[in-house]
Amino acid sequence: MSGTKPKTNPGNYFEDFRLGQVIRHATPRTVTTGDAALYTALYGNRFAVQSSDAFAKAIGYPHAPLDDLLVFHVVFGKTVPDISLNAVANLGYAGCRFLAPVYPGDTLSTVSEVIGLKENSNGKTGVVYVRSTGYNQHGAEVLDYVRWVMVRKLDEKAVVADQKVPELPSALTPAQIGGAVPVIDPSAYDGVLAGSRHSWSDYQAGEMIDHVDGMTVEEAEHQMATRLFQNTAKVHFNQWTEGQGRFGRRLIYGGHVISLARALSFNGLANAFHVAAINGGRHVAPLFAGCTVFAWSQVLETAELPGRDDVGALRLRTIATKDRPTNDFPLYGADGKEYDPAVILDLDYWVLMPR
Amino acid sequence: MSGTKPKTNPGNYFEDFRLGQVIRHATPRTVTTGDAALYTALYGNRFAVQSSDAFAKAIGYPHAPLDDLLVFHVVFGKTVPDISLNAVANLGYAGCRFLAPVYPGDTLSTVSEVIGLKENSNGKTGVVYVRSTGYNQHGAEVLDYVRWVMVRKLDEKAVVADQKVPELPSALTPAQIGGAVPVIDPSAYDGVLAGSRHSWSDYQAGEMIDHVDGMTVEEAEHQMATRLFQNTAKVHFNQWTEGQGRFGRRLIYGGHVISLARALSFNGLANAFHVAAINGGRHVAPLFAGCTVFAWSQVLETAELPGRDDVGALRLRTIATKDRPTNDFPLYGADGKEYDPAVILDLDYWVLMPR
Amino acid sequence: MSGTKPKTNPGNYFEDFRLGQVIRHATPRTVTTGDAALYTALYGNRFAVQSSDAFAKAIGYPHAPLDDLLVFHVVFGKTVPDISLNAVANLGYAGCRFLAPVYPGDTLSTVSEVIGLKENSNGKTGVVYVRSTGYNQHGAEVLDYVRWVMVRKLDEKAVVADQKVPELPSALTPAQIGGAVPVIDPSAYDGVLAGSRHSWSDYQAGEMIDHVDGMTVEEAEHQMATRLFQNTAKVHFNQWTEGQGRFGRRLIYGGHVISLARALSFNGLANAFHVAAINGGRHVAPLFAGCTVFAWSQVLETAELPGRDDVGALRLRTIATKDRPTNDFPLYGADGKEYDPAVILDLDYWVLMPR
Repeated sequence: MSGTKPKTNPGNYFEDFRLGQVIRHATPRTVTTGDAALYTALYGNRFAVQSSDAFAKAIGYPHAPLDDLLVFHVVFGKTVPDISLNAVANLGYAGCRFLAPVYPGDTLSTVSEVIGLKENSNGKTGVVYVRSTGYNQHGAEVLDYVRWVMVRKLDEKAVVADQKVPELPSALTPAQIGGAVPVIDPSAYDGVLAGSRHSWSDYQAGEMIDHVDGMTVEEAEHQMATRLFQNTAKVHFNQWTEGQGRFGRRLIYGGHVISLARALSFNGLANAFHVAAINGGRHVAPLFAGCTVFAWSQVLETAELPGRDDVGALRLRTIATKDRPTNDFPLYGADGKEYDPAVILDLDYWVLMPR
Repeated sequence: MSGTKPKTNPGNYFEDFRLGQVIRHATPRTVTTGDAALYTALYGNRFAVQSSDAFAKAIGYPHAPLDDLLVFHVVFGKTVPDISLNAVANLGYAGCRFLAPVYPGDTLSTVSEVIGLKENSNGKTGVVYVRSTGYNQHGAEVLDYVRWVMVRKLDEKAVVADQKVPELPSALTPAQIGGAVPVIDPSAYDGVLAGSRHSWSDYQAGEMIDHVDGMTVEEAEHQMATRLFQNTAKVHFNQWTEGQGRFGRRLIYGGHVISLARALSFNGLANAFHVAAINGGRHVAPLFAGCTVFAWSQVLETAELPGRDDVGALRLRTIATKDRPTNDFPLYGADGKEYDPAVILDLDYWVLMPR
Repeated sequence: MSGTKPKTNPGNYFEDFRLGQVIRHATPRTVTTGDAALYTALYGNRFAVQSSDAFAKAIGYPHAPLDDLLVFHVVFGKTVPDISLNAVANLGYAGCRFLAPVYPGDTLSTVSEVIGLKENSNGKTGVVYVRSTGYNQHGAEVLDYVRWVMVRKLDEKAVVADQKVPELPSALTPAQIGGAVPVIDPSAYDGVLAGSRHSWSDYQAGEMIDHVDGMTVEEAEHQMATRLFQNTAKVHFNQWTEGQGRFGRRLIYGGHVISLARALSFNGLANAFHVAAINGGRHVAPLFAGCTVFAWSQVLETAELPGRDDVGALRLRTIATKDRPTNDFPLYGADGKEYDPAVILDLDYWVLMPR
């Protein structure tokens, strides 16, 4: 290889991607109890299964697994240098399944496959669809999801011959989820220790829950979180550049909002100990340091898992806002179409609870 | 259980408590070397026993125990959702004994008993006294203390028939402390490595020590600390609400001040490797981010521990201030009665030192 | 020992040091995966060997070693209370060699020898030269370096009879480095996972690499880092005092800048997995919170390691700036002599790469 080529990572442009291309991402990462402690310090999560080895063991885990969203962020972070370094916008994600538990000491790595490419009519950008899969050190899949981003072309005249828009799952079915939870013993699940006496059968489709509490975000916090996940997206860290940009501020990683909303949701969903799948999510508006995040959830659906009577599933829609309490469940504005200006996240996902 | 009742935690109001009531608190917590690293990053503590496995082993521990105050904060944090969510004021604590060492990997949980109830004459609030006990995963007591808080009534007409003001210990005796320290070999205790050649016999009752150094507190730091302890008191995290409140600021967790003062006290008390008991403490004034904390201590008493010649005890009074150095030992104002306006903490506790 | 002497650490003044004096520093420190997680959260480092047990094992380590600069900071931090508490200026360091790998669970301690003393002509200060050595719990040397600082005299009339200016190595030779890296299997080193296909032979002396990315520093971040390293230099933590000082601000620990520059250098030097030596460094200007750090590097030299064909060495000069991108490789100002005012660090060091 020549020493004269730039050795820094220029990222991939739209025309660099090929349908069916498989990308092994850099920086395998051993996740530890150190990461778990930082995750707690950053979000204040209190779900008993992830918080306590003793609790996890009692119901059937070998010991406490790592938080599902910590795993998601670490797996996701690896894709940034290859997929979204030249992204104009993160358009969406879908079909995210948690497939195996991840424990302290496991090493995570990520591989992506390009499953769709669609150039925009302006000839300057295109949409790249990838399925990314996280693996542990044994080669077992721990997580997969589809993500699509709008990426710049470097050479507007470049032709991407083979294009395709993939079919995206609108939501995962109960049969597709639960792989990351061993069969548990619900009778050993201590609701008092877990923080709630409400079990799966207490929740009903349509039910709305205000999570009450608010959490103010500081620059140091979201930067530390995003670096912990080894996510290198420049907009989160560089005030010199962002100060001259559209917002004049560093933009907070969207995953930080998801983790905050999940931690806040403990108040009302304390027994929803596992995020089993993310059907889709929309980062409706950016979040900046100094804002206070609130959240509320609606139960979209309750479901049994085929062949399992230890846990049941709730499909949730969780809405996060900034600088606006959620006791009146804000979602849309006066016109009933546009989001309320305070809404920053609209997330559709499955959680599991003991039955 | 009905799905129509609110599933969020409303906390307990004064009339919800009963004398003799036992409350098992939520969220057991496995504490790890990750928590220890964060504790060091947040407070900068340098006591050799907690900092070094090799040092701890040399004197008789199996390996380095976790910092005593980290244990306190974790045990304490669990009580907040049940005891003080609707508190008007934290009035005091007393009789806090450290009963067994806690090591990385141990799981902590907390149980409280209501030992006193006294309605205030205004009929709107009452004082709740609880004895809280922290346990490890083997069911051994690691910590207990009494705390009393003023709690709102939800229904002012509610009658709390059975009331009682418990007797509170003014200070623990030397015979009651030391259980969290195995018998150590003082000849293997290396004072140079520990940072001081002053052993227990060098300290005298009445002696005053300025701890010299100052530590400025940032919002991100106290929020991360308080979340690490899974303490959910709203005033520490929610600038949106607090910005409209009495102070216009997030209030820093009182325990954060105690841990800062303890870390600062290393300069002058480096061999006081163990906090054996907290006799009582008063958070004289609130602390806010941006302020710089200083501390000084007075030796109130020196004591032998019955039956032990490996360690001796010092009863200390440590005073922390904000934005005021402590070289002149500030305590009371000009009238000699009211605290100096810079004082934020007045703490009475026992520490152990090698003999 | 008398209880009437002040028990706080006054630090050493110039006249307190003696040629040949050996100082065992306080606070042995067990470094853990918790420290590694915090280091990642603070700097965002992504070198695969330190990030992944699986990657490290594949090439020949027993598991992932701790980051070299984390080890440096911990070893260095211990010297502050004895060497530089009364320092006027940190003048330089040289000949820093990483001698053995450090793994989570190891306990680090530091011993310094005074190798030079030279009083300044003003009679108020003198320069103290020390060689500091970091040891693990087995007594093996893991790191050594020479550092010189200008220290105040307490008594200007005190005479320091025995003075000497030691010879300082201008740079370490390839024969002197590499001890901290076991013989690795370069064929098992996966460049895709490591984040770069550029191996040692791709780099050429004279080559300049802009590391592109910028990182903004927050007060909470540098304070947490510096406390994690148990570095007690007052200027980093005490806004009350520093606010009245020369800069009106807390000064950021110089080692924080080195770690940021090293983490940024991943973009262009991803396979430079080990810092083998620091030949010397200059903190050209102070860094304050709110500034954004950028970095670029020049390859000064490429070298084989005598007797090893698994790894090769690059001697690098890395320049860090504040609030100025480095795409035009800023170094000197218009006069070609003085540093560009944006430059904050000029570091000369050896890194190792697989061959």
